[in-house]
Amino acid sequence: MKFPRKKLKSDIVLVETDKITMHGLDLCQDILGKVNLGDMAFFQLEGRMPTPQESAVFNAITVTLVEHGMTPSAIVARMTYNGSPESMQGAIAAGLCGMGSTMVGAMEDAARMLQEAIPDPKARIDVDALARQVVAKCKANGVTIRGIGHHFHTPIDPRAPRLFEIARANGFDGPYVKLMQAIAKAAEPPTFVNAPGAIGAISSELGLPWQIVRGIGSMSRAIGLIAHIREEIRDPMTREIQFRVEEEATEHLRGKRDKS
Amino acid sequence: MKFPRKKLKSDIVLVETDKITMHGLDLCQDILGKVNLGDMAFFQLEGRMPTPQESAVFNAITVTLVEHGMTPSAIVARMTYNGSPESMQGAIAAGLCGMGSTMVGAMEDAARMLQEAIPDPKARIDVDALARQVVAKCKANGVTIRGIGHHFHTPIDPRAPRLFEIARANGFDGPYVKLMQAIAKAAEPPTFVNAPGAIGAISSELGLPWQIVRGIGSMSRAIGLIAHIREEIRDPMTREIQFRVEEEATEHLRGKRDKS
Amino acid sequence: MKFPRKKLKSDIVLVETDKITMHGLDLCQDILGKVNLGDMAFFQLEGRMPTPQESAVFNAITVTLVEHGMTPSAIVARMTYNGSPESMQGAIAAGLCGMGSTMVGAMEDAARMLQEAIPDPKARIDVDALARQVVAKCKANGVTIRGIGHHFHTPIDPRAPRLFEIARANGFDGPYVKLMQAIAKAAEPPTFVNAPGAIGAISSELGLPWQIVRGIGSMSRAIGLIAHIREEIRDPMTREIQFRVEEEATEHLRGKRDKS
Amino acid sequence: MKFPRKKLKSDIVLVETDKITMHGLDLCQDILGKVNLGDMAFFQLEGRMPTPQESAVFNAITVTLVEHGMTPSAIVARMTYNGSPESMQGAIAAGLCGMGSTMVGAMEDAARMLQEAIPDPKARIDVDALARQVVAKCKANGVTIRGIGHHFHTPIDPRAPRLFEIARANGFDGPYVKLMQAIAKAAEPPTFVNAPGAIGAISSELGLPWQIVRGIGSMSRAIGLIAHIREEIRDPMTREIQFRVEEEATEHLRGKRDKS
Repeated sequence: MKFPRKKLKSDIVLVETDKITMHGLDLCQDILGKVNLGDMAFFQLEGRMPTPQESAVFNAITVTLVEHGMTPSAIVARMTYNGSPESMQGAIAAGLCGMGSTMVGAMEDAARMLQEAIPDPKARIDVDALARQVVAKCKANGVTIRGIGHHFHTPIDPRAPRLFEIARANGFDGPYVKLMQAIAKAAEPPTFVNAPGAIGAISSELGLPWQIVRGIGSMSRAIGLIAHIREEIRDPMTREIQFRVEEEATEHLRGKRDKS
Repeated sequence: MKFPRKKLKSDIVLVETDKITMHGLDLCQDILGKVNLGDMAFFQLEGRMPTPQESAVFNAITVTLVEHGMTPSAIVARMTYNGSPESMQGAIAAGLCGMGSTMVGAMEDAARMLQEAIPDPKARIDVDALARQVVAKCKANGVTIRGIGHHFHTPIDPRAPRLFEIARANGFDGPYVKLMQAIAKAAEPPTFVNAPGAIGAISSELGLPWQIVRGIGSMSRAIGLIAHIREEIRDPMTREIQFRVEEEATEHLRGKRDKS
Repeated sequence: MKFPRKKLKSDIVLVETDKITMHGLDLCQDILGKVNLGDMAFFQLEGRMPTPQESAVFNAITVTLVEHGMTPSAIVARMTYNGSPESMQGAIAAGLCGMGSTMVGAMEDAARMLQEAIPDPKARIDVDALARQVVAKCKANGVTIRGIGHHFHTPIDPRAPRLFEIARANGFDGPYVKLMQAIAKAAEPPTFVNAPGAIGAISSELGLPWQIVRGIGSMSRAIGLIAHIREEIRDPMTREIQFRVEEEATEHLRGKRDKS
Repeated sequence: MKFPRKKLKSDIVLVETDKITMHGLDLCQDILGKVNLGDMAFFQLEGRMPTPQESAVFNAITVTLVEHGMTPSAIVARMTYNGSPESMQGAIAAGLCGMGSTMVGAMEDAARMLQEAIPDPKARIDVDALARQVVAKCKANGVTIRGIGHHFHTPIDPRAPRLFEIARANGFDGPYVKLMQAIAKAAEPPTFVNAPGAIGAISSELGLPWQIVRGIGSMSRAIGLIAHIREEIRDPMTREIQFRVEEEATEHLRGKRDKS
């Protein structure tokens, strides 16, 4: 093989000594001081600034994902920071590594299910019939429908109706949102849409491909993890957790030794 | 040792079945749809919503850090995604792992230098004298002053004056900003403040402890990395990079074999 | 919900002040100085020391995975180290994040395919008939058969026959190895088993569940990455790579600016 | 700037279609089936195979580091796997991210202290005098001496004397080992060498530069983490941990709500 075989090419940014240009905008003059972080994220992903309606909706879904308590990602980031305080970036990275198929994967799976069911959001569809088809297909394939129900937030996930309300107020309650809601009703037994389902649906309305929806979870949670690390610095809890776990998990081995 | 020895305690959020409460605010009613992602980050870190002035300044420093071209973090995230497309979170995490002392560490070091030089930002100080002291102390200890000069953005880093302008317009050009600027002038040879220096100074004005300043870089860059991964999905470049590197780096070994 | 709902329990090790006990062996007296790292890995995974035959075979598959040139994992670890030299652990971690479905996933997929085809390795099977079934099933499901062929090591992957030779010499060329070889022959077009395929098959012979086979790749490559980092410290190459990539990838954007 | 400015070059391996060559050895013919994983690690790091004595000592220090109970790295890897079961590599990576300055950093710091105190291991030194100097210098600089004492393994760390015994039996109890032991005695109050101290000293005897000693911890622990993940798959404990932590850590917030 002879190289180069392909020209490397990126359209994201041009960094020059005196100027940083992104999709025709000058970072310093056109963006800094005028754009909030959520809009910048939309701009970075889409290559254009959001409309006020897109901004409202996109900021809402990212804000939802920042924090959700003592999740594995939060405990992991805290523990990792204590082992490697020289490397806050590593603690955040470790926390993100666990934001996968079990948690934010539900957003991705919901978005994929919706985008595969509605390849063209402008086409006319019979939402209820399509929902029944999706449910039947998942059942036939032994696939769990994601984005509906919740082990803890029950009988309703309070984030979903609020997100749908924001979407509707901004004109983003189109076919993906309607299908997601219809799927929850068509499920056996009928249930409610949860936050990942709402985010998967609204992301689809915004035109985000399902392949990058999981990334929305990573970027938002990265923010949340810093607050956990900051609290861990001020009032550490992970050593106590570790010692308790060690003590309890090996009690049966200690018992053996005492008997022998 | 007997456990528990300490009560675990976190003030960040209370997640209940029907309600998520953060520092007295109801996530669904008081935050979603009303707060942008940058303000949410400030809220998450500080436990209170920013003033409009704080919002302007904090969003500006985070937006600055989202994207800076084909940095190691961008290349790393793209390469990692190609090896593990099932795990976008791992690709983002890998990209963040390299956002350490060399790059965003300059922000942290600048913030630390400033916060140690001015423990109380309300005290009266002689900025120029203090700057000379800081420069002399760094010289005596063989420590490189960080946050000044730039290997590429020279003779000025265009982001720094713009950030200082935003800080001034919002009343955040206090002693840390002044000291940072004075340090650049007092350095040998005199030079300019760069973006990490400006961010370190403005973060200090906002009251962020230097220990978490590096995290601002991680959370902002996490956003940028998703756009790189999205571009890599559409128009991949990392395999070409890998093959070229392999080819060139082992040419001398291949040569040996041909001769033998 | 009331907690605790479940007792925490681990059988891996008992760490006491004066003694560390693993599966009945005293780390200091029974293991250190007597066991090599590969055998320790087997012991750690299986809870018992390998036989000499198992040791030969297990060490061979792990040794195979240590190093494979300027792979993405190697470039990533080097780049990450340069950004975060304070955190070698983060550089190794970043390198491992990319050892996923594309690369070592082939080992996992091959092992899974074999273990699902032969749930009981002691049962009598018609290897060629079973191979044809597996190939037909993959074709029907649109699934690519993994562990066979190679984009670069062609018309043969030199590691596979050597690994099979070692397996045979030690009595581990049972049904999984035979099936893997038969699948390569039954494929359309017929091809050869590659190193991941051989490792997937031999791991199955050793009784390792397919769910952990990917981990064998991670642990072995972690070793390889340290040598890359060490070389990067002595003779760095990643900044040069980064600068070249940046220059080439944004050339078209620079062009635009010059014209405007 | 014009590129290329530097030729990329790596001496680690030449991967050709039919042959993989490392430092003059053919991977398939000369290494596989003949070399254990610990010796391969030494070979990969040093570019030559170890002597039997080096093999004994190097394998012993790596084996020591494989497993140490319910450490943060083990809990982190388990939690991360549960969130991202599609990515075992990410779980191992997350676990490694926390193997930093707090834990394995002690090995690195001890090795650095010794190597800086004895730049030339062949020079004649007065060990006791040098130990007193090192202790005095650390005290003067406010630096904690690492590699001595232990919060849990007390009044002795059983791994250290065993590692020193193995080192002595193989001729690796030279000046670094002697200095480490003398430093423990010269410390205020006098104490014992712990496992990280012994490993830092013995690594120095083997000629490993202190900059890569931390990597020995990462590669060894990567092995240990797979066993934890395997156990977590069979008998999960991390969700229980997470639920207990959440419940206890937010009890005071729940209390507030009940009163209001």
